[in-house]
Amino acid sequence: MSEPVTLALTAGEPAGIGPELCLQLAGEPRQAGLVVVACRNLLAARAQALGLGVQLHDWLPGQAPETGAGHLSVYHVDGCGSHAAGKLDTGNSQYVLDTLTVAAKGCLTGDFDGMVTAPVHKGVINEAGIAFSGHTEFLQALCGVERVVMMLATEDLRVALVTTHLPLKDVAAAITPERLSQVTRILNADLKTFFGIEHPRILVAGLNPHAGEGGHLGREEIEVIEPTLEKLRAEGIQLTGPLPADTLFTPHWLDNADAVLAMYHDQGLPVLKFQGFGRAVNITLGLPIVRTSVDHGTALDLAGTGKADAGSLRTAIRVAEHMARYRQAAKNTG
Amino acid sequence: MSEPVTLALTAGEPAGIGPELCLQLAGEPRQAGLVVVACRNLLAARAQALGLGVQLHDWLPGQAPETGAGHLSVYHVDGCGSHAAGKLDTGNSQYVLDTLTVAAKGCLTGDFDGMVTAPVHKGVINEAGIAFSGHTEFLQALCGVERVVMMLATEDLRVALVTTHLPLKDVAAAITPERLSQVTRILNADLKTFFGIEHPRILVAGLNPHAGEGGHLGREEIEVIEPTLEKLRAEGIQLTGPLPADTLFTPHWLDNADAVLAMYHDQGLPVLKFQGFGRAVNITLGLPIVRTSVDHGTALDLAGTGKADAGSLRTAIRVAEHMARYRQAAKNTG
Repeated sequence: MSEPVTLALTAGEPAGIGPELCLQLAGEPRQAGLVVVACRNLLAARAQALGLGVQLHDWLPGQAPETGAGHLSVYHVDGCGSHAAGKLDTGNSQYVLDTLTVAAKGCLTGDFDGMVTAPVHKGVINEAGIAFSGHTEFLQALCGVERVVMMLATEDLRVALVTTHLPLKDVAAAITPERLSQVTRILNADLKTFFGIEHPRILVAGLNPHAGEGGHLGREEIEVIEPTLEKLRAEGIQLTGPLPADTLFTPHWLDNADAVLAMYHDQGLPVLKFQGFGRAVNITLGLPIVRTSVDHGTALDLAGTGKADAGSLRTAIRVAEHMARYRQAAKNTG
Repeated sequence: MSEPVTLALTAGEPAGIGPELCLQLAGEPRQAGLVVVACRNLLAARAQALGLGVQLHDWLPGQAPETGAGHLSVYHVDGCGSHAAGKLDTGNSQYVLDTLTVAAKGCLTGDFDGMVTAPVHKGVINEAGIAFSGHTEFLQALCGVERVVMMLATEDLRVALVTTHLPLKDVAAAITPERLSQVTRILNADLKTFFGIEHPRILVAGLNPHAGEGGHLGREEIEVIEPTLEKLRAEGIQLTGPLPADTLFTPHWLDNADAVLAMYHDQGLPVLKFQGFGRAVNITLGLPIVRTSVDHGTALDLAGTGKADAGSLRTAIRVAEHMARYRQAAKNTG
């Protein structure tokens, strides 16, 4: 567990709190080697505006990143034309996506051991005429994988989702045997590879209230979920469910599980964020790279005030570091 | 606040833990006057089997119920043919429904100030050839009201639902302006009448992930929810939302609210039960009577062991008592 880990940290939307969160972290001594992937001038301007005495160091692949308090390695990306906090500028959108591409490609080539993303602003990227539905989908396309899984985690709870950003009326039809199987297999495999859990124990929520109550409140459990879980169990995956979502999140079940698989966004995430708001990390599973993210947005109203809380970003970095180390260990023993 | 309160407590399914929970409470001194509505012989048999020295007193309307430890007032209902713990008997189903009818009619005539229900077993009632989809619907029909609202509450959180026991695929279409308006008005009115909140502050969840994200993830917020909330605000109801369900359950919002209105079962109840499992109470709003319930089932496997936890029932009684007292106060000042 002693090989050095180098993580790319994309600073996200220039008008948001991302750049100053990166600068905040620079003030602290660090275990993982952090390289901020961003415009050098943006970071310098924000540091000056906030009176933060951070020394920026240009970084190139192969170099060891700075880890001392007050020093920050930066992998410069061109194209950030305006640096004002709080003011969105469609002219910066391509630059924002370029930081993601640089970081992800660096992960694929091995320059980085993982990437952590500060928030971007979907709206302004789309206004710039670039189709963009989120980090997750962008990285999925860039890495060329068929399916990724969104998982949110705190210290005490992990919740992965079968469907994510779908209108509620489309959720039931999207719960197919194929999707459920792919997502479950990815979750199971990545809990092993990236979290060091030898035999993951996964709780699966039903789709309907009371998990369908024997077919009285919906038949998807009987027709889709149960038969699919049976097949996956035959592959050796440890699955409990489908369980009623309203009683699943109680000690009786959670105390003996490594992760929860919820069928849709608002079934799983309200509990997760209630339990660990400000400490939750968004993790993309199913990629060939390690990727974590904060669980908050760009907070344009806070940007430039220095009052934003780096708690979630700090946790996202710690989780990415652990994931990268577990993967190293798996490779070394595998 | 000093008028005596008399509550009917229906003992629920004879084979379940309901009867012994009622007997457990009899061992404690009580503030509210409790009358267990059940078969006297069932209670006597269960008390004997568990070695509980509870003295049962036949109660008739107009009498003051026993409140001393070890004494319990019983309003006897005929028709409970078998008393075995753990063994369902369709022959008892009509008796179970009769206890509900007796209690509810007693509330309507003023013999009782409210009713608290121990769990029934839907399955065995339906097997007996009687259509029954739950306490709530049964009481709604008996009281002849068009709409009731299911609310779960702990000491710290109240969550009401716009839709309840519907297959997930049918939820979106069920969120109509009519239903949303009726439910919101009932919630607002009953928070005043039964909880003594002068100007209730209600947080309303969106239907879709991220509350639709400006229409990108579903249009029900724009087409149905927002216009309906606007009309309700014009009536003087304090509503915040539609809010994304995954960030609604955080201190920023909850600290300044009296209740949450969730659009569907598994959007609102997982958090509520995570936050307060074993302490949550199910409350039916919109009825002309006070009605609360435990948040657990019949627990057939525990019945007859004396190990069932009366915590939820105790809380349900306390909440019913408070509701009855607030209603008295509202009547006296109104």
